[in-house]
Amino acid sequence: MQYAVPLEPTILVIFGAGGDLTWRKLIPALYNLHLDKLLPERFAIIGVARKQVDDEAFRRRLREGVDLFSRRRPAEEESWNRFSTHVSYLSEDFSDPASGPALSQKLEELERAWGVRANRVFYLAIPPDMMEAAAAHLQRLGVCRDCRRDRLVVEKPFGRDLATAVALDRLLSGMFAESQMYRIDHYLGKETVQNILAFRFANSLFEPVWNRRYIDHVQITVAETVGVEERGGYYDNSGALRDMVQNHLLQILCLIAMEPPISFDADEVRNKKVDLLHAIRPIRPEEIHHSAVRGQYGRGTADGKAVPGYLEEPGVAPDSTTETFAAFKFFIDNWRWQGVPFYLRTGKRMPARVSEVSILFRSAPHQPFPSAAVENWQPNRLIIRIQPEEGIVTRIQAKQPGTRLLLGPVDMQFRYRDAFSTAPPEAYETLLLDVIRGDATLFMRADQVECAWRIVAPVLEAWESVPPGDFPDYPAGSWGPESANLLIAREGHNWLQPTMPEERR
Amino acid sequence: MQYAVPLEPTILVIFGAGGDLTWRKLIPALYNLHLDKLLPERFAIIGVARKQVDDEAFRRRLREGVDLFSRRRPAEEESWNRFSTHVSYLSEDFSDPASGPALSQKLEELERAWGVRANRVFYLAIPPDMMEAAAAHLQRLGVCRDCRRDRLVVEKPFGRDLATAVALDRLLSGMFAESQMYRIDHYLGKETVQNILAFRFANSLFEPVWNRRYIDHVQITVAETVGVEERGGYYDNSGALRDMVQNHLLQILCLIAMEPPISFDADEVRNKKVDLLHAIRPIRPEEIHHSAVRGQYGRGTADGKAVPGYLEEPGVAPDSTTETFAAFKFFIDNWRWQGVPFYLRTGKRMPARVSEVSILFRSAPHQPFPSAAVENWQPNRLIIRIQPEEGIVTRIQAKQPGTRLLLGPVDMQFRYRDAFSTAPPEAYETLLLDVIRGDATLFMRADQVECAWRIVAPVLEAWESVPPGDFPDYPAGSWGPESANLLIAREGHNWLQPTMPEERR
Repeated sequence: MQYAVPLEPTILVIFGAGGDLTWRKLIPALYNLHLDKLLPERFAIIGVARKQVDDEAFRRRLREGVDLFSRRRPAEEESWNRFSTHVSYLSEDFSDPASGPALSQKLEELERAWGVRANRVFYLAIPPDMMEAAAAHLQRLGVCRDCRRDRLVVEKPFGRDLATAVALDRLLSGMFAESQMYRIDHYLGKETVQNILAFRFANSLFEPVWNRRYIDHVQITVAETVGVEERGGYYDNSGALRDMVQNHLLQILCLIAMEPPISFDADEVRNKKVDLLHAIRPIRPEEIHHSAVRGQYGRGTADGKAVPGYLEEPGVAPDSTTETFAAFKFFIDNWRWQGVPFYLRTGKRMPARVSEVSILFRSAPHQPFPSAAVENWQPNRLIIRIQPEEGIVTRIQAKQPGTRLLLGPVDMQFRYRDAFSTAPPEAYETLLLDVIRGDATLFMRADQVECAWRIVAPVLEAWESVPPGDFPDYPAGSWGPESANLLIAREGHNWLQPTMPEERR
Repeated sequence: MQYAVPLEPTILVIFGAGGDLTWRKLIPALYNLHLDKLLPERFAIIGVARKQVDDEAFRRRLREGVDLFSRRRPAEEESWNRFSTHVSYLSEDFSDPASGPALSQKLEELERAWGVRANRVFYLAIPPDMMEAAAAHLQRLGVCRDCRRDRLVVEKPFGRDLATAVALDRLLSGMFAESQMYRIDHYLGKETVQNILAFRFANSLFEPVWNRRYIDHVQITVAETVGVEERGGYYDNSGALRDMVQNHLLQILCLIAMEPPISFDADEVRNKKVDLLHAIRPIRPEEIHHSAVRGQYGRGTADGKAVPGYLEEPGVAPDSTTETFAAFKFFIDNWRWQGVPFYLRTGKRMPARVSEVSILFRSAPHQPFPSAAVENWQPNRLIIRIQPEEGIVTRIQAKQPGTRLLLGPVDMQFRYRDAFSTAPPEAYETLLLDVIRGDATLFMRADQVECAWRIVAPVLEAWESVPPGDFPDYPAGSWGPESANLLIAREGHNWLQPTMPEERR
């Protein structure tokens, strides 16, 4: 979320420079920012990893990544050459407390050549178990002490429950100021997130009806068609609640339900999100089965082909009780949302890859139409479609052409792709630029992370202590277990078929 | 506005059966209703005119009309033959008080054959100056006395000012009950009219913001690219105010601004429209030049070709002061609309053929976005497009894709053509079926007509008593005279460029 301000000289240090994230995401994103001339004039990337390679070999490997994964690919010879002059490599085992001052020397060298103290961004693209060593190394070197200039980018997961999240925060906050910390959840860097904020707060037409008086309930669906793919080992230790609900789905909920921020200042937006998380009614232990359900896919079909069940996936324990589907019902205890259920669901091996938010409006209070005209009646529905085809749809009632008065639902819609010829940037482009510019609006603050863990904690504990018993409980290629339908049916609602972009009515 | 009810046996008598309206509109509409199997099983059409022709010659002529003008054309042999068995002709000079009982005999003959007293619909497709004779003839024959079964269809114009309208009403109401009278304004039979009612009252999303608290002002534009064509003689005696404002534009205003009806009962809908017309603030004589402006086109261009000015058109007096453009500013003195200006404009020889209503919403009360993000700011706008491409558009602000937060207007839209494969019926199909079924919702009631005349009367009188002085004052192919811009600029507004369906942003 950036504006045209002159960019200060910046050195980006990537810890874990040999890893997948650097190769697939970070360097392609930086290369695209370079193509768009959005990087600072004085800019350096230092890759740090244990392996002994020289700058040239490192750059060659990165170029391969750009050729494979960049939004604009393959790398264009001249641009790449210019870009790669900014890139160097440092072989260092930062987990060894005896590792020397090579990094600080390299930073100072660069800054001496530029004649300025640059902004230093340390990107920890490393597994959670290496976080502490990297942080300690930075502290030891004293290279990240300037609260204004020096920043630390931390990748999720931010803990695997409330206790570990608190411990991680405690560790980091002992060494760095909260204002230096950029907890990255790439989901927040997607255009959608900013689009929801723009849609809600730049338009006067919808905010007046954005409350309990006019909205009946809200549904948030994030469905994947894939199974766990090659991530079985990781996923089996995580599950849908940790992998999706605690972060992505609660973030979407915040964007949809938060109060209007006074400004787009980072802390203001994050305060409003935390306010919302605080207002979510805690799930009491005796209500868990009414508020949250889990599921695990068995054998079934995907894209018309037979696919294995979760328990047969590589890396998954054959008696795993990890959930691949989760659905929640939340209530928000504030003036705006009292009594309005928010239903969230996410799952793997669903029939469609789709992420969308459906706002269901109450019916018109009075129906002047003859009953024959409204047999196909549906309440108004506003759909914020995140993928596969980003857009906004308002489902309204219209008269069907003809001499009879017959009402039926039609869609008023806007698709970003139709409206704009520019392709949206990748999430990492947006987020890296935000870090360089020092805008933390789209990053997670410690209290957000902890609040979100606190919300799901009772469910997490209950699920860990009581085995599901009936797993697998939905076939691959279905919309999840029957219990998810019961969850929503209890309030007289039902899950809505997500809208597909090719669908006309 | 019709439902599936069994249709009673009906005889439709068309006075003026040799005229253009019968040939171009009425018979093609009836033929299409026949194709759609919407006519009563027992149905007869009797054409009445002075000319001596036999049934066969009359049917041949009607078939030519269907071949030329029907929505589905040319006539299909078998269907036409079946349809035409319902059609007969009666040569009669109803303006001659000595004309005999031929019509009543014919009606009774038919009814005797059917074994029922049919519903009788008398359609007066005749010039205003023959109205009295036709009505008197019907009264003399005593064929239109059953208040429930017998109906009289009267074509506009309903007078040429308040006095003549009142006189016409007095004449007709002396002979027939108001409930028998179907004053037809084909504009009200267009799908659009019913679509506006459906849009407003079948959707809960918009009604909460449909008032002075959220709406800044409303613009109604009905623009034609044509000049007076072959209608110069008629038009020069009428003008934009009589031809468009008093009927069509005020009707659209009613549909947009009326309170929600309790039901779609004919009198309930018309009551609500009359309520709205009553609430329009009368234009005081000293304010006329602030509330209404007129214009007349001079030479200019249409479709890239040079076209003559109004005064050079055939049938137009060379010193004519008839207006071909009119713009009004109205205020509505009720709780919903107090202080919200409604701007109406209509004209010939405009740059585009377009009819649309634009609802301009107030700006969001607070702007959290950085000023650089909102340079291209526009308030929300809801557009009800009537032609050329019927649909509804909501112009909202969205974030433009990219790493910067930049807002710009985009359209969320719905086009009837995209949503429905069925072609909408012609206005006359809808209206004729309504008359046959006895539903007067879409017809003008006497008090509506008079109320509308009363609203424009001060302007009509002023324009007739004070010559315009500066006619012609806009070139063909422009959006009207400068005075129209001043009219709206006085409140700090400006006429909005109508949206074109091909236009994306």
